[in-house]
Amino acid sequence: MTLNILFAAKAERWTGYEQPLTDALTKALAGRNFKLATKFAPEEVDYIVYAPNSDLQDFTPYTRAKAVLNLWAGVENITGNETLKIPLTRMVDFGLTHGMVEWVTGHVLRYHLGLDIDITRQDAKWEPRSQPLARDRSVAILGLGALGQAVAEALVGLGFNVSGWSRSEKAVDGVRCLHGDAGLTEALKSAQIAVLLMPDTPATQNVINAETLAQMPKGAFIINPGRGPLINDDALLAALDSGQIAHATLDVFRVEPLPEDHPYWAHPNVTVTPHIAAATRNDTASEVIAENIRRSEAGEPLLHLVDRDRGY
Amino acid sequence: MTLNILFAAKAERWTGYEQPLTDALTKALAGRNFKLATKFAPEEVDYIVYAPNSDLQDFTPYTRAKAVLNLWAGVENITGNETLKIPLTRMVDFGLTHGMVEWVTGHVLRYHLGLDIDITRQDAKWEPRSQPLARDRSVAILGLGALGQAVAEALVGLGFNVSGWSRSEKAVDGVRCLHGDAGLTEALKSAQIAVLLMPDTPATQNVINAETLAQMPKGAFIINPGRGPLINDDALLAALDSGQIAHATLDVFRVEPLPEDHPYWAHPNVTVTPHIAAATRNDTASEVIAENIRRSEAGEPLLHLVDRDRGY
Repeated sequence: MTLNILFAAKAERWTGYEQPLTDALTKALAGRNFKLATKFAPEEVDYIVYAPNSDLQDFTPYTRAKAVLNLWAGVENITGNETLKIPLTRMVDFGLTHGMVEWVTGHVLRYHLGLDIDITRQDAKWEPRSQPLARDRSVAILGLGALGQAVAEALVGLGFNVSGWSRSEKAVDGVRCLHGDAGLTEALKSAQIAVLLMPDTPATQNVINAETLAQMPKGAFIINPGRGPLINDDALLAALDSGQIAHATLDVFRVEPLPEDHPYWAHPNVTVTPHIAAATRNDTASEVIAENIRRSEAGEPLLHLVDRDRGY
Repeated sequence: MTLNILFAAKAERWTGYEQPLTDALTKALAGRNFKLATKFAPEEVDYIVYAPNSDLQDFTPYTRAKAVLNLWAGVENITGNETLKIPLTRMVDFGLTHGMVEWVTGHVLRYHLGLDIDITRQDAKWEPRSQPLARDRSVAILGLGALGQAVAEALVGLGFNVSGWSRSEKAVDGVRCLHGDAGLTEALKSAQIAVLLMPDTPATQNVINAETLAQMPKGAFIINPGRGPLINDDALLAALDSGQIAHATLDVFRVEPLPEDHPYWAHPNVTVTPHIAAATRNDTASEVIAENIRRSEAGEPLLHLVDRDRGY
């Protein structure tokens, strides 16, 4: 029987995905017939390749569907959907993960080395400076999921002094792993650079607020490639104005695109980047989707299954 | 017998080195008496801790000295000194090497990710962009000495597609190693980012010239933390003006400090940094000096001995 695979994302994404997904499915399903399309009768759909901003929000009519395979790493806009009763997987693809590692490592080194001084210099002043070695620079990775762990490992590889924080206890080689509320305070206390890679859940919203910002060493740096709601924006702006936080690089926001009149754009100590830290790559993401459909058909456990109670 | 160790560098360096060198020698020589000072009768000196810009340029009177231990990685200003007949060692210290790794990796990631766009943005335009993954970014390390190898290994660790070039054949894990004249052309042909880490010898001067710049892919980036004379400055400026080279980050120059009216300062596609890529760190460097004096006294081979014929 032909497997019917629905591609349910914004129409403009179809062009980029049709070929890579077809290729990956052809390879993974090894001769099994499938049909990949953006429209089916709902009751005839076997799998749903999904983006949370799709028009598909009511899963009730998809009575035959076996799984929803999310194209995004973030699932906060779908875990609360009461009509979704079948397994949901997150996207964890090499391209996205490695893109995140590269982006975070680049910004950590930028702060560590003070690159902005050289890049923006307008005078012709020869002013040598020195900075500590990476081993004497404390970086805290808040959130030790797949992305946080990969980032932490890369920074350890470069010699940084890395702490990691997660809700529940974890262990990552070379990383001082902390957890729970007391662990968060401990992680922030020594963090000259903090990287936010927590999921967006009710428990993590506004985790960066006036109180937690005050726990950091004066002149610390914040990098947020995670989720916009992790930060209380007013508290961060106040900390930037007072110098408690020296600079912030923000890639994600409560409203995107970030409105032109948002104070982050004009703040001299904020770098805004347009949600580019970790783009899903069509080719590597398609391989993950195809592999999960193969697993489901073979009765094997799905990769990156979302725990809907926990929210990620 | 007390070992007399002469510190022969600019007077202003003494303050920073007196304590770290004393500590490192005390530890390495394990009870052996030594005297560390900036003045001795020349014929009573056993070892010379040396910076090439020292007033000491005639080694003839130092009849008892067993070795000259250079505080710098670069030895081009001393290898031609005909009065120097005793072994000469270069500085290869963890702090200097790792500082170089951090600096080069930071600038490679900066170019790879296009960070300048975000850092210098003055409008409030939300313009997402994407770049290849590191595995699809070719970086060539020209020069595979201690520094070049360490840099190449770090970039391989981050997933970059790394080629390396050296005069004689070398092998570095994960690096496409090339050598000789044909190898240089091959390395440059595919180099989207080229890092210059060759020593300054008659054979390497102006290795980056109109001809070799034209061999690179259009829009390539140049990073020079090595030596100023590696680059023909007029040729590089012409290649920057034509767009053959998109941008250059230069840390070393034929004349330092780089004169205020040098065209590099004002060029929109050049970042000048004030010879900060790899600073010798007093504490880690002192450990290397002390270890070599210990080795010499124990009859063991010296670390980082300079081959004076080869020039490094």
